[in-house]
Amino acid sequence: MWLPDEAFRPLGSRRVLVAVGPDDGPVAETVVAEVAAATERFGGSLVTSPVTVDEALACDVVLAIVGSAGTVGTASATMPPPPGHPPRTDPYLRAVQAVVEDLLALGSSVLSPGMFGLGRHRGRTVVVAADAAGLLYGLHAMVRRGEAALSGLDDFVWDLPVSSVRMLDHWDNTVVHPVMGQVERGYAGGSIFWSEGRVRDDLSRVAQYARLLGSVGINAVGLNNVNVHAAEARLLTDHVDDVARLADAFRPHGIRVYLSVSFAAPITLGGLETADPLDPAVQDWWASAFRRVYEAIPDFGGVVVKADSEGQPGPFAYGRDHADGANLLARALRPFGGTVFWRAFVYDHHQDWRDRSTDRARAAYDHFTPLDGRFDDNVVLQVKYGPMDFQTREPVSPVIAAMPRTRLAVELQVTQEYTGQQQHACYLGPQWAEVLEFPLAEDGRSVAYIAAGLSEGDGQPTPAGGIVGVSNVGTDEFWTGHPLAQANLYAFARLAWGEEDPVAVLDEWIGLTFGDDPVVRSAVHAVLDDSWHTYESYTAPLSVGFMVRPGHHYGPDVDGYEYTAWGTYHYADRDGIGVDRTRATGTGFTGQYPSPWRDVYESVETCPDELLLFFHHVPYTHVLHSGSTVIQHIYDTHADGYDEVVRMGGTWESLRGRVPDAFFDRVSERLAEQERSAREWRDHVRSAFFRRSGIPDATGRTIY
Amino acid sequence: MWLPDEAFRPLGSRRVLVAVGPDDGPVAETVVAEVAAATERFGGSLVTSPVTVDEALACDVVLAIVGSAGTVGTASATMPPPPGHPPRTDPYLRAVQAVVEDLLALGSSVLSPGMFGLGRHRGRTVVVAADAAGLLYGLHAMVRRGEAALSGLDDFVWDLPVSSVRMLDHWDNTVVHPVMGQVERGYAGGSIFWSEGRVRDDLSRVAQYARLLGSVGINAVGLNNVNVHAAEARLLTDHVDDVARLADAFRPHGIRVYLSVSFAAPITLGGLETADPLDPAVQDWWASAFRRVYEAIPDFGGVVVKADSEGQPGPFAYGRDHADGANLLARALRPFGGTVFWRAFVYDHHQDWRDRSTDRARAAYDHFTPLDGRFDDNVVLQVKYGPMDFQTREPVSPVIAAMPRTRLAVELQVTQEYTGQQQHACYLGPQWAEVLEFPLAEDGRSVAYIAAGLSEGDGQPTPAGGIVGVSNVGTDEFWTGHPLAQANLYAFARLAWGEEDPVAVLDEWIGLTFGDDPVVRSAVHAVLDDSWHTYESYTAPLSVGFMVRPGHHYGPDVDGYEYTAWGTYHYADRDGIGVDRTRATGTGFTGQYPSPWRDVYESVETCPDELLLFFHHVPYTHVLHSGSTVIQHIYDTHADGYDEVVRMGGTWESLRGRVPDAFFDRVSERLAEQERSAREWRDHVRSAFFRRSGIPDATGRTIY
Repeated sequence: MWLPDEAFRPLGSRRVLVAVGPDDGPVAETVVAEVAAATERFGGSLVTSPVTVDEALACDVVLAIVGSAGTVGTASATMPPPPGHPPRTDPYLRAVQAVVEDLLALGSSVLSPGMFGLGRHRGRTVVVAADAAGLLYGLHAMVRRGEAALSGLDDFVWDLPVSSVRMLDHWDNTVVHPVMGQVERGYAGGSIFWSEGRVRDDLSRVAQYARLLGSVGINAVGLNNVNVHAAEARLLTDHVDDVARLADAFRPHGIRVYLSVSFAAPITLGGLETADPLDPAVQDWWASAFRRVYEAIPDFGGVVVKADSEGQPGPFAYGRDHADGANLLARALRPFGGTVFWRAFVYDHHQDWRDRSTDRARAAYDHFTPLDGRFDDNVVLQVKYGPMDFQTREPVSPVIAAMPRTRLAVELQVTQEYTGQQQHACYLGPQWAEVLEFPLAEDGRSVAYIAAGLSEGDGQPTPAGGIVGVSNVGTDEFWTGHPLAQANLYAFARLAWGEEDPVAVLDEWIGLTFGDDPVVRSAVHAVLDDSWHTYESYTAPLSVGFMVRPGHHYGPDVDGYEYTAWGTYHYADRDGIGVDRTRATGTGFTGQYPSPWRDVYESVETCPDELLLFFHHVPYTHVLHSGSTVIQHIYDTHADGYDEVVRMGGTWESLRGRVPDAFFDRVSERLAEQERSAREWRDHVRSAFFRRSGIPDATGRTIY
Repeated sequence: MWLPDEAFRPLGSRRVLVAVGPDDGPVAETVVAEVAAATERFGGSLVTSPVTVDEALACDVVLAIVGSAGTVGTASATMPPPPGHPPRTDPYLRAVQAVVEDLLALGSSVLSPGMFGLGRHRGRTVVVAADAAGLLYGLHAMVRRGEAALSGLDDFVWDLPVSSVRMLDHWDNTVVHPVMGQVERGYAGGSIFWSEGRVRDDLSRVAQYARLLGSVGINAVGLNNVNVHAAEARLLTDHVDDVARLADAFRPHGIRVYLSVSFAAPITLGGLETADPLDPAVQDWWASAFRRVYEAIPDFGGVVVKADSEGQPGPFAYGRDHADGANLLARALRPFGGTVFWRAFVYDHHQDWRDRSTDRARAAYDHFTPLDGRFDDNVVLQVKYGPMDFQTREPVSPVIAAMPRTRLAVELQVTQEYTGQQQHACYLGPQWAEVLEFPLAEDGRSVAYIAAGLSEGDGQPTPAGGIVGVSNVGTDEFWTGHPLAQANLYAFARLAWGEEDPVAVLDEWIGLTFGDDPVVRSAVHAVLDDSWHTYESYTAPLSVGFMVRPGHHYGPDVDGYEYTAWGTYHYADRDGIGVDRTRATGTGFTGQYPSPWRDVYESVETCPDELLLFFHHVPYTHVLHSGSTVIQHIYDTHADGYDEVVRMGGTWESLRGRVPDAFFDRVSERLAEQERSAREWRDHVRSAFFRRSGIPDATGRTIY
């Protein structure tokens, strides 16, 4: 993926001082090892303690951990760093301080975890960080900049993650599920963690993966599917040693591991007759279970829970609410510093499609906002970015702005369940950037700021949650099935860190992955930059969503979910299409939004075109802000989207011989399938809406 | 199922002479054993040789095998009986002849295999048969008639099977298929034959099943799925001993076993580089393979082949046609007396839905009729009853009348793939009776007559094929999942034999299964007699077919197959629905029919209502012969069909306590699911067509 040896050439050819000590822990050791490997490969040299001031000043590059208050020292690699760690005063550290001390005045007087400063200073390149994780992030920030980071004029900046939790959940089963396979909604082969019920013997691939994630600031991973089947439930108990082996693989890269657990575990694993969260025996069971986990994994992160959702057990069975449920686990984890990620994806999946008053989009808000303030402070409520389920286009979930007293994490889907299943090139950076930068709160705060618990202007900080993505990797030789889907994993991490420009992030990925060939850079941008919009254009129109084949969710089926129990309808008839979610005449979902969105979305006049059918049922002849009618928009976007895919294929073809053959060939195969599938989408959707509406395509293009 | 001990009470309380000898083989032994068990249980007595004339005349019941030319004698139980078997002349046979000799003049002077005479004669009940199989069928015919067969005035009739082959194919996999399960399109649990790749250790259930089938004249079974996966392919070679064990279980009941084989077996099993039917090495391979099979199973029936169909290998890969393919196997089987059942279910399952000129309904005719006369005489071409695929309503396949020089078997589907999957009560006897009695041929011959190779009036006999059904049984405690689906298995056998009245056949089944309670008899008739029409009424309307959920085929999905590669379309738009298969303006499929059907179906004026949308695309406002419009017909039948299911549930409820509780409860559960599902069908279809047509239901019933 994005850490080829070649990316380390600029660093590796220098004389590099890494100023860490034996107490700085395994992440610091990783930094040393990275520099050692790079300098060995490319002819530079690594300097470690002890050094003199002169030796330090003779280095081209200095990487140093400084104390949390700006004093050069060491910090434990565990997160958060232990307070009050005494600064070291030996000659080695004085040497380093001579290099960096006047830098510290440039930055914050309080360095937060993961923060680092990087830049040119007095003719050399310096990375200083609050802790080992920050040093690792700074190292990789330097690598990303390439030669430019190692030459030129003084220019020093501080960087820090917006969100303190940057997590990837893996919907991996330990055994192959008869319907969902080894990785639920996975499109890249088997699980890199699990095989036949146990952790893999050979974890070298996990180590590579952990290095990749650590390099872009991911600091938490969920190791198993949120749908917890019987075999996977036992990870918490019988197979905790397997989990410990994975924790060992992730730890050197600053990443803590989490397990998805079953709320019914006290019954299914513990032999109790109840899982009632208010039952003391249940509370004791969880406390004991976690005690044993922490004996094996002292820095175990905590749990991810899908409860009362799509058949998973939960507190409702006992007449308890989700605060009771989440706090049960939170209190059992508290003594050990663990956190509960409690998913807000709770809705009725046995809905009666005949009943137009029930609106799945309302469900998370209706279930959770009454509980705001009731969750313990080691609970994070994990909310999908939209009110439905990872569609190509949804409005941002109003839950995110509606629970100021609750830690909230925003959940994004890196694995392309509804966005082409890693058969289609669909770069999701722009979607996530739109979501994260969307000024949802009444005070204008963005989704990213809310998730980070940051205030804006005079606002008060709120509790910090995080950003969570569902991973897209597997045992596939390219990690992600579609090699270009690696860019999604990269972009997720960088946007979760706080980067805002998805095209700039993509540019980083291109540079790391392919080097500096401007032809490649230009072509990959041409293929990916707008690929999300392209995908949107030939699939479900105008945010109406769910026109996919039921079950596997690949390919078009306009009415596939229309008469089902899943709450995902478009109500297309011979006259019009869309879901009336207004307060005036519909389900009232618009009322869950703060101002101004509650009114922007309420009115067909102000609702953005791209969200029109999510909020309104309109005639096919309704004229969009774009000037086109809804029906002509459907015809045009589907024809144009397919044409764009053909163009993407041609662009990629121009790279033959410029990127590795295996990579080229795989992408070519996928683009051919994307073209086939996009043609199917185009013709199916155009035909279905022509048959319904009877309105011809004004351009006269063929409708079958 | 239909052979409870109680059914044998009338026979078992009599003095019964069974006049068979040691040379009559295992089927004759079965007759003796049945009578022995019955008389032991119910206080009668069994008389076997030697007897005097007086002893014979003192019996209440006489069962005897007579020679094929009407002379009392013995015949081998193998089928067909060996010609020229010398008549026995010992006193035993003279005694029997004294009872039956003047009966023989009443019947045919030449008795055909399986034929028997049954009736009252000189104050006693007599069964005479050409062979042991006929004697078995006659025994069970007597049992079916109950006490009436054993008292009353003289009344003697001859009976014989119309079709010489009456076969049940089992789509059983030896290992559980990841998608299709153990029994493909099976709705009654696992396979009674196979478990974990091998034949079951305990074949007692197979023995029960063989007894049931033998009692109603089934004489052939296919033991494995026509989609032959890797494990099942090896039945022909590595696991032929497993097949032999099953043959041993079926043999005593007059049933020969067949295997489905893979056309690619010379490659996959034999290690050859080709399966080309004209390659001598391939021919040798099959000859050797069958030689080994017949060493293990001397009366092995032969093979069933699905070739070049839905991904199965076939002769097309080598530029050969299906006559080449079938004759390859036929010539390898000929030395041993084996037969090839070669399925005509060949069509393009990668069809482009955009192309309205390709018509799957035409495929079997287009592929096979040019080959008429080219198939060897131990090849039977197995043709599904309709041109598509076992839909609830299709016209009869024109192939059946179009190949006078080819042995044809008509294939019916007992397992309810498209007719409610043994969740819905759907008695298929009326459908099959309509198909088998349909006067398809230009000379007026029915489908059953064509399959039997019989002539009518001055017509010439054609080669005899048979009737084949796909079995609906499994390891379920009631054999068929829905207990009332037992009636379908029973009816298939009786209609394949030659019975014509499906209600009378159902009445037999009710009597055997439940005894003589008139309340039960009346209620089961009320539930089942019209249940096929009821099912038709709430599912796809007017023979348009395929409005099921793709893949599993259960439940409604109006457009589920509309934009797929399967060739199963209805072209419903805002104005109308149906497939134009006319010669004048459509695909020309009507031209595959002989007169008068080619013209009856061609004209919208003469096409029967129930087949209208199979042959014509009409506006929703088209007025049917019934006087209703198409759209109102859809509305009415779907509402009425659901109401009828509710009524069926009420009728069944009246039987609580009158039928065994477990049977009652299972049927009640299924009727509840049928009611739920029928409501879903009703509302989905009514809504979908209202949304498309915009035409309200004239009765004002709710449309969602």
